[in-house]
Amino acid sequence: MNKTTIKRIGVLTSGGDAPGMNAAIRAVVRSSVYHTIECVGIFRGYEGLIEGDFEALNARSVKNIINRGGTFLKSARSEEFRTKEGRQKAYNNLKKAEIDALVTIGGDGTFNGAIVFNEEFDFPIVGLPGTIDNDINGTDYTIGYDTALNTVVEAIDKIRDTANSHNRLFLVEVMGRDAGDIALNAGIGAGAEEILIPEQDMGRDRLVESLKRSKKSGKSSSIVVVSEGDQIGKNILGLADYIRENLKEYECKVTVLGHIQRGGAPSCYDRVLASRLGVGAVDALLNGERAVMIGIVHNKIVSVNFKESLKGSNKIDEDLIRVADIISI
Amino acid sequence: MNKTTIKRIGVLTSGGDAPGMNAAIRAVVRSSVYHTIECVGIFRGYEGLIEGDFEALNARSVKNIINRGGTFLKSARSEEFRTKEGRQKAYNNLKKAEIDALVTIGGDGTFNGAIVFNEEFDFPIVGLPGTIDNDINGTDYTIGYDTALNTVVEAIDKIRDTANSHNRLFLVEVMGRDAGDIALNAGIGAGAEEILIPEQDMGRDRLVESLKRSKKSGKSSSIVVVSEGDQIGKNILGLADYIRENLKEYECKVTVLGHIQRGGAPSCYDRVLASRLGVGAVDALLNGERAVMIGIVHNKIVSVNFKESLKGSNKIDEDLIRVADIISI
Amino acid sequence: MNKTTIKRIGVLTSGGDAPGMNAAIRAVVRSSVYHTIECVGIFRGYEGLIEGDFEALNARSVKNIINRGGTFLKSARSEEFRTKEGRQKAYNNLKKAEIDALVTIGGDGTFNGAIVFNEEFDFPIVGLPGTIDNDINGTDYTIGYDTALNTVVEAIDKIRDTANSHNRLFLVEVMGRDAGDIALNAGIGAGAEEILIPEQDMGRDRLVESLKRSKKSGKSSSIVVVSEGDQIGKNILGLADYIRENLKEYECKVTVLGHIQRGGAPSCYDRVLASRLGVGAVDALLNGERAVMIGIVHNKIVSVNFKESLKGSNKIDEDLIRVADIISI
Amino acid sequence: MNKTTIKRIGVLTSGGDAPGMNAAIRAVVRSSVYHTIECVGIFRGYEGLIEGDFEALNARSVKNIINRGGTFLKSARSEEFRTKEGRQKAYNNLKKAEIDALVTIGGDGTFNGAIVFNEEFDFPIVGLPGTIDNDINGTDYTIGYDTALNTVVEAIDKIRDTANSHNRLFLVEVMGRDAGDIALNAGIGAGAEEILIPEQDMGRDRLVESLKRSKKSGKSSSIVVVSEGDQIGKNILGLADYIRENLKEYECKVTVLGHIQRGGAPSCYDRVLASRLGVGAVDALLNGERAVMIGIVHNKIVSVNFKESLKGSNKIDEDLIRVADIISI
Repeated sequence: MNKTTIKRIGVLTSGGDAPGMNAAIRAVVRSSVYHTIECVGIFRGYEGLIEGDFEALNARSVKNIINRGGTFLKSARSEEFRTKEGRQKAYNNLKKAEIDALVTIGGDGTFNGAIVFNEEFDFPIVGLPGTIDNDINGTDYTIGYDTALNTVVEAIDKIRDTANSHNRLFLVEVMGRDAGDIALNAGIGAGAEEILIPEQDMGRDRLVESLKRSKKSGKSSSIVVVSEGDQIGKNILGLADYIRENLKEYECKVTVLGHIQRGGAPSCYDRVLASRLGVGAVDALLNGERAVMIGIVHNKIVSVNFKESLKGSNKIDEDLIRVADIISI
Repeated sequence: MNKTTIKRIGVLTSGGDAPGMNAAIRAVVRSSVYHTIECVGIFRGYEGLIEGDFEALNARSVKNIINRGGTFLKSARSEEFRTKEGRQKAYNNLKKAEIDALVTIGGDGTFNGAIVFNEEFDFPIVGLPGTIDNDINGTDYTIGYDTALNTVVEAIDKIRDTANSHNRLFLVEVMGRDAGDIALNAGIGAGAEEILIPEQDMGRDRLVESLKRSKKSGKSSSIVVVSEGDQIGKNILGLADYIRENLKEYECKVTVLGHIQRGGAPSCYDRVLASRLGVGAVDALLNGERAVMIGIVHNKIVSVNFKESLKGSNKIDEDLIRVADIISI
Repeated sequence: MNKTTIKRIGVLTSGGDAPGMNAAIRAVVRSSVYHTIECVGIFRGYEGLIEGDFEALNARSVKNIINRGGTFLKSARSEEFRTKEGRQKAYNNLKKAEIDALVTIGGDGTFNGAIVFNEEFDFPIVGLPGTIDNDINGTDYTIGYDTALNTVVEAIDKIRDTANSHNRLFLVEVMGRDAGDIALNAGIGAGAEEILIPEQDMGRDRLVESLKRSKKSGKSSSIVVVSEGDQIGKNILGLADYIRENLKEYECKVTVLGHIQRGGAPSCYDRVLASRLGVGAVDALLNGERAVMIGIVHNKIVSVNFKESLKGSNKIDEDLIRVADIISI
Repeated sequence: MNKTTIKRIGVLTSGGDAPGMNAAIRAVVRSSVYHTIECVGIFRGYEGLIEGDFEALNARSVKNIINRGGTFLKSARSEEFRTKEGRQKAYNNLKKAEIDALVTIGGDGTFNGAIVFNEEFDFPIVGLPGTIDNDINGTDYTIGYDTALNTVVEAIDKIRDTANSHNRLFLVEVMGRDAGDIALNAGIGAGAEEILIPEQDMGRDRLVESLKRSKKSGKSSSIVVVSEGDQIGKNILGLADYIRENLKEYECKVTVLGHIQRGGAPSCYDRVLASRLGVGAVDALLNGERAVMIGIVHNKIVSVNFKESLKGSNKIDEDLIRVADIISI
């Protein structure tokens, strides 16, 4: 595979949507135009690949979307793509549409599908990490993560108003699946008193002891940020009951931030990151790469073997945990 | 009671906090200074009144708070204030501090307390409507309501990104207690397909039928705004299950917006409203009024007998319901 | 003209854009659909009317625009529409497209054009007040005004951070043409020390004296909100020089907020207002009204003779000026 | 100098304020408490050092400031600190207050002062890079830069609404002094058609040619982001006149974003960065470092010799310029 053989690139988004996906699509399209390659949008992820739900995109097709959350190509889960028959249909559609390569934007599920498809049909695929969870290996940041951090921090700033006014304790559940990145960073940013993450098991008793100490030290309200994947935080209502029984000092409330974390206008960082990765995806295809994820490491665009990207997410930063402990004093 | 007899005004916030309460306190303080009256802040509502938790406030004490959510005087519920003994303590504290009149900022619970206190001790009290729920009679708007509408609409804008990207149906629960004002207005503003409010019983079947029709008409995603006090929306998880069983066209998700609705920097409207009401409260006291709420009706500041303000909340605007029906086509 | 004779409505936006215009278009379109009337979008205001730049709109054409600033129908000034020939072309295009009535969304210039056109051709036109300036008679609020207030207040909140940190004086110029509504309300909302509006001539000396007094009273920084139409504020750089010469206590800086005030996602209030007015426009046409503006007065939708709407803007609220004076103490 | 000899740390902010400075102060204070070191706030930068304007700070002194723009310690320029006499007074005050080390938060001017002071009195000083301009060597990011990027991008999103609605060209001036980082990144993030930065001289003719090409390619509006330090952008009004004469295709407008860029609630990134750097500053002092800046490189906290940090700012990223060119197609 060399540069001259790629004449038409397909682009799709798959899995949970993330702010910046539109910016990434835009960059793939415009970068294709820049290299005089045609670009085809595939709707609803692998589902649309199987159904042949395609639309030619040009530079103007992607105007005024860099600032929009979600993905205008839409996303979906596809059970059929897990079957050999489904993938064969997808391959046939690509051949018929004379698409030579794919850019898939999504998370680990998306990449798993891409790996299988690439192996079966020797079809060139480049992946971009698009998920708010920041749980992809081989990239410092995923598209949407920075925006989600700001959304969480702004939400907790609002909750803090009430917590302060009423001397309350709030348990705030945030997303992140098995990764504590959102909880840890947004927890530091929001000035949380405690942060519960899957990578570290705190235990209910230590949590209550710590909250008691901080109440004694003069704190009149408290925010506990709880990652959805945390051991004791998974059952957040049960945790709240336990706290109510064992910590009479505060009135305890629960807020589950939910899906607001996946949407919203992307932050500048996510827009720039998505733009760089989108350009990088087309560069990689033109350089003959066939089964890689494009990521950012130390502020440089890198390509990582797909399988590497799934080798367990980045470990949590011990330095950050120490910072969180110190500044919540 | 005439102007010359009021030399010192106490101000407190009580009940749930609402954005703009700080702006109202600021206006009461500065209006007092303007009229060369002293002003005393009472912390934690009626609880602080009973405990004598007072602090003299001057024009500089309230700088840089107009833009802050919550209430720097803090708020609390007070069981003791429901007792004759509690109220007697409160009265004694006011006498000792030579406070001649009170401004209480809060909702119906706050006003109920104020009515009893005023009657027992013939103590001048003026109330300001501070609640996001807009459920006070005799005022077109309560302090915090406009901000809450914007918070809800911004949150649903984010959720819409995901709904659109995945062709999903979202049930979004919003606050408002027994009043549908937040749900109806934010529902219109967010372009919701359906809005469930306590004032109108839709029934689960009609809801499902209507959602089916809108799906058939070409809608690919759907937002249903559910007021926390709505008959079928109260049990939002049960409602979601019912929808999942009877409407296979969408994947159905639930988001409870929760306490983010009570916080945040107040909107311009709430800051101006709170400032006008705060000035109006001091004017009313100087005019000899003793048991009134200051509200806004047709953009004019008015005073309303306390008891009037509690006579059942304003009815829902039928015109708005019609608008909601038409524009969700 | 009665209900049955209107089968197709044209809708256009003209003059400066304002947040909420899209929500108004959406409501006109969906209300037309509701009444089984066809709706045609006319691009670039009267310019597109003359050029026949039309596009049929249905309920789905206006999805996902309620939350967007600007106007997707675009806006333009049209010199040609000021000529008899231009208007004749416009009329011919309307006849050819079998459009029976127009809804025009804009400010006074838009309404002036509508009045002439209605008189010349006896063509039914209903106007909606769309301008951030709130300078239209016969409506309490114009579409876009509430959003602009929030934009200004958020911007000044940011500037206040720097003013406070450096003990500075900032002159902040805001829009509004000859109306001081934005300056006065946003000035109160932002906690400005002084507010300069066209309706009230303060004079440079009184301004400086007042700033000196407030400095002496303990203020360490100061925000002066200056309406672009104010007598001494029009030349804001000259005013800054004058202040620098006569008030050594502060370092004086100038910020012109500019066009950020016209854009942005509309506030909930503007979305609801625009939706109500859009529905009201179609109602009015169906009721046989032919040359009116639809406005909101005391929270009720009203229709106002076009000429009334241009009879000098609403006077400034004296009560608000008093509030501004008191709370900036 | 070893760990045991530092018993009291002074902290100050100097130069232009930047969002996140409060978060940095908070981290310095709480990290001091964590290490059982006392912490003293010094008001108004070096000016307050000379005047002895000090206040002891504890963990509670810095509550509820992590989300606030500006600096509660205030900032100022100090002419007197440029003199030997001024610095001697400052030193005497530090000795009298038994302060053993300083943390100074600011930009290059702040660090220059720190270098001289450290050399004259052999006084331990650690600097933190606090400026929106990102123009400090030895750190990938400065405190406040990420927030400023988001502020700029949000402002241009609003301006884009109007640009799109009216087919206009907007020149938008952004801050950054001699560094193009803000312009380049915010320009990419805002989807600007052209970006003018000091590091690259485009020339007026090439700019006009490029805008003509993009108009021909189908763009109906245009945003040009202009760095305040750019050669042809410095005189932005002159540039606008030149464009008006040579590019009749658009109506050309100018907006100077101004001081809104320095304020506002810090982004999550800036809060976390400031927290890490603040903790790092105290760590460095305890490790015996005496004249270093604490920065972040490749997501690790590093210490850099003060003089290194001033050796010309980081070069602009050529890769980013290429991305900007490609995605503005």
